[in-house]
Amino acid sequence: LSEAREGHVISSSGADVAETPSDLDARKQVLHAVRVLGARSRNDVATATGLGRAAVGQRLTELSAAGLIEDAGSGPSTGGRPPRRLRFRAEAGHILVADLGATSIDVAVADLSSGILAHRAEEADIAAGPHRVLERVESLFDELGREVPAGYGPLWGIGIGVPGPVDFNAGRPVSPPIMPGWDGHPIREQLSQRHGVPVWVDNDVNIRALGEWRRGIAMGHGNVVWIKVGTGIGAGLISNGVLHRGADGAAGDVGHVPVVDEGVVCRCGNIGCLEALAGGGALARDADMAARSGRSQWLADALERDGVLTAKSVALGASHGDAVCVELLQRSARLIGHMLATVVNLLNPSLVVIGGGVSHAGNLFLATIRETVYRRSLPLATRALQIELSGLGEDAGVIGAATMVADELLGAGLDLLPASVAAAG
Amino acid sequence: LSEAREGHVISSSGADVAETPSDLDARKQVLHAVRVLGARSRNDVATATGLGRAAVGQRLTELSAAGLIEDAGSGPSTGGRPPRRLRFRAEAGHILVADLGATSIDVAVADLSSGILAHRAEEADIAAGPHRVLERVESLFDELGREVPAGYGPLWGIGIGVPGPVDFNAGRPVSPPIMPGWDGHPIREQLSQRHGVPVWVDNDVNIRALGEWRRGIAMGHGNVVWIKVGTGIGAGLISNGVLHRGADGAAGDVGHVPVVDEGVVCRCGNIGCLEALAGGGALARDADMAARSGRSQWLADALERDGVLTAKSVALGASHGDAVCVELLQRSARLIGHMLATVVNLLNPSLVVIGGGVSHAGNLFLATIRETVYRRSLPLATRALQIELSGLGEDAGVIGAATMVADELLGAGLDLLPASVAAAG
Repeated sequence: LSEAREGHVISSSGADVAETPSDLDARKQVLHAVRVLGARSRNDVATATGLGRAAVGQRLTELSAAGLIEDAGSGPSTGGRPPRRLRFRAEAGHILVADLGATSIDVAVADLSSGILAHRAEEADIAAGPHRVLERVESLFDELGREVPAGYGPLWGIGIGVPGPVDFNAGRPVSPPIMPGWDGHPIREQLSQRHGVPVWVDNDVNIRALGEWRRGIAMGHGNVVWIKVGTGIGAGLISNGVLHRGADGAAGDVGHVPVVDEGVVCRCGNIGCLEALAGGGALARDADMAARSGRSQWLADALERDGVLTAKSVALGASHGDAVCVELLQRSARLIGHMLATVVNLLNPSLVVIGGGVSHAGNLFLATIRETVYRRSLPLATRALQIELSGLGEDAGVIGAATMVADELLGAGLDLLPASVAAAG
Repeated sequence: LSEAREGHVISSSGADVAETPSDLDARKQVLHAVRVLGARSRNDVATATGLGRAAVGQRLTELSAAGLIEDAGSGPSTGGRPPRRLRFRAEAGHILVADLGATSIDVAVADLSSGILAHRAEEADIAAGPHRVLERVESLFDELGREVPAGYGPLWGIGIGVPGPVDFNAGRPVSPPIMPGWDGHPIREQLSQRHGVPVWVDNDVNIRALGEWRRGIAMGHGNVVWIKVGTGIGAGLISNGVLHRGADGAAGDVGHVPVVDEGVVCRCGNIGCLEALAGGGALARDADMAARSGRSQWLADALERDGVLTAKSVALGASHGDAVCVELLQRSARLIGHMLATVVNLLNPSLVVIGGGVSHAGNLFLATIRETVYRRSLPLATRALQIELSGLGEDAGVIGAATMVADELLGAGLDLLPASVAAAG
C-alpha cells in the first residue's frame, strides 16, 4: 500500500484534501450498508456499520453529493417524524459485460446493482482466438452502448468472464485448456485502452458464484460452493464471504478429480476424470451410443428428428420416462455427488448451488445429487447444508460479471470511480 | 454490529470518549503493521498502512500509552537524524494455552507474540471426558502461572485446541467423534468464569495452520493447506489470508475421503476412508501384521523389544532400509498424495504443509507425497506450489493456540483488551 491509495475522489470538501484510508473505509461501509445490506434509513445504516449518527450523516452527505445515494422520500412513521428513506442510485453509471463460453458470447449492459438493461446472446467459437472474439465483443458493446436508457450515467467499468483460469490481478487468462491463443492475452489492457474505464476479468464459474451470492439464492451465506455442470464441470468457492481464487486463479477445478478407472480418456489427457464421465459431453456421447445401438428407442427417434443428441435430449427423454435416459442422468448425478461429498467434507459450506446447462435436467438430477452427498458426507458437515439449483437462469454469467465490476468499483476500489463523480463531489 | 462494539478501551484521551470503528480500525492497522508485518519505524508503518504521518503518530502515542508498543532506541541513520525504532511489547501480557490430543495434554504459557515461556506435556485420555481433563488442565495452568517470568504483564486470554470440530463462535466442541462426553461442553464459559479473561477454542489442526502462518514456514502465503498426518488425518485451510472454518466448524475433514474399496472399516463406520488406510493407526496395524507373519524381521525384532509397534517404528525401520517399512510408508504417502491432488485442484494453494506425528517419518514420506501430487494435479495448480514439512515441531499446537488468542485480542478484538490496559491509556 502506498500514499497513492489514499482516496481523493469523492470528497465533499474539495479535490485537495488528502483523505485517510479510515475516512474512505467509513464511506465504503455506509455505501455497502445501503447498496448490499439493504439499509433504508440512517438508523439502519448506524446499526449495520456501528458508526455514530453524526459520522453516518457526514458520509451520506458525501455519497449523496457524488450521486451514489439519494433521498427516496419519507418512510413509514413509527410515531414521530417519518424517517427519510435512502436509496442506492444504481443508475448513476452503467457497466458493460461479456460472458464468453466455449461456443457462445453473452453481452449485456447493466446498472450498478447488476440489473440487466439489455442483453445479446449468440454462438461463437472461443477457439477462434482473442482477436476475432474480442472484435465481435466490441461490436456488440457498441450496439448495446446505444441502448442505455435515458437517465443512466456514463460507462463506469467493464467485466469479462472466460471459460478458463485467470490471473485476476493481471486481468489475463493463464494456460486455459480450451482457449487456444488466449494464454496471457492482455484482455484488461486491450479493453481499458479503448474505453478508458477499469476492466476486470475472471473465470466464468467464479463470476456466477459471485452473482448468485449478491443477487441469487446464496445471499447471506458466508461459505458457498457453486458447481457448474455443463460441457465442463467447475466450482466457484465463497470462503468467509470472499471469493476464493487460489494462488494462480486456478481454484475450483473439480472436473478432473479422478472418480473411477473406467478407461474413458478425458480431454486433459488423464483417465477416469469426473468431467469425462459426468459432464454434458459424456451424456451426449453415451446418448448417441444408446440411440445407435437400439438400446433406447426414444433417443433413436430424437437423433433422427434433431440430427444430434445433447445433454438436453437426455433430460427430455428422462422427463418422458425413457429408462436409458434416467439411468444416464442418475449416473452423472451420482458421480457429481461423490465429488461433492469430498468437497463438502473439506469446506463445510452452508449452501451448494448447482448451475450450468445440465442442471436444467430437473428434479431427478438434483434429487440424485442430494441423496449421494447426504449419504457420503460426514453428518456434521451436512447438518445445516442446503443443495439447490441456481436461481439466476440464463442471465447468471452477465449478472455475475456486472456484480464483479460493481463490487470492485464500490467496495475495495471506491477510489477508482470516474472523474465525473469526483466533480459532483 | 451495535454501538457497544465501538472501542472505549485504549483511548489516550480518557474513558468517556466514544471512538468510531474507523479510529479503532486505524489503531488496529498500526498495531498490525508493527506486530505482524514487522514495521520498525514510523515510515515503515505509514507505508504498510497507507495512513499519513500525523495519523500514524497519533495512533502510536495511544498504543504506547496502552503499553503495547515502545520506543526501542535509535535505528541506523540514513543520513539525517537516526529514526526511532518501534517494538511490539510481547511481554505486555501473557496467554495460557492447552492443546488437547487424543492421548496427550500440552499446556504452555506464552507471550503476546506466541513465544513459549514454559511448556508441560503429559499423557492423558481425552475420552475421560471434560470434567477430568479440564481439571488437569487447570492444575497445570496453576503451575505454569507461577512460572511467568518477572516483568511480564497479567493474563490476557486463554486458548484451547481440541481434536475435533468446534463451533468457534460458541467455544464448544460439536459432535466430536473421538471425544465422548465433550459434545457441546461449554469450555469457554467454564474457563472464562474462573479466570475472568476471554477464551477461544478451536480444532487442533486449525490452530496449527494458524501458528504455521504467523510464525512458521507459511508466513506471507495467502492460500495454505496444512495437513496433519497422525492417528487421524485432517486439514487446516487458509483462504485469502483468513482461516476457513466452514459453516459448522467442520471444514478440513479429509480423513474420510474414500480412496479405495479395500474392505478396511474406518472408525467412522465407512469403508475405504483415507484415514483407515494411511493414518498412523493403519501404519501401526499393518506393521504389527508384518511382524507377526514374519514378513519383516526388523519389525518382529522391534515388536519383541518395544512390546508395541507404532508409526514411529515404521519410520525407523524405513530409515534402516527395511523393505516392508519402506513399502508401508510409501503406500500411506501415495494415498495422502492422491487426496492432496484433489485438494490442490480445488483450492490452488501456494503452499501445502505436512505436519503431525507421521510427518516425522522423513524424506521418503515427503518425496512420495510430492511425486504423487505433482503427477496427479493439474499443471497450473502446481505451477508455483511448494510442499513442505511443518517448521514448528513439537510446539506447533501450543504456538498455534497462543496465536489464535493474540490475533483475536489484538486484531479483530482490540476492544477486548483487559481493563488494566485501558487504565494505562
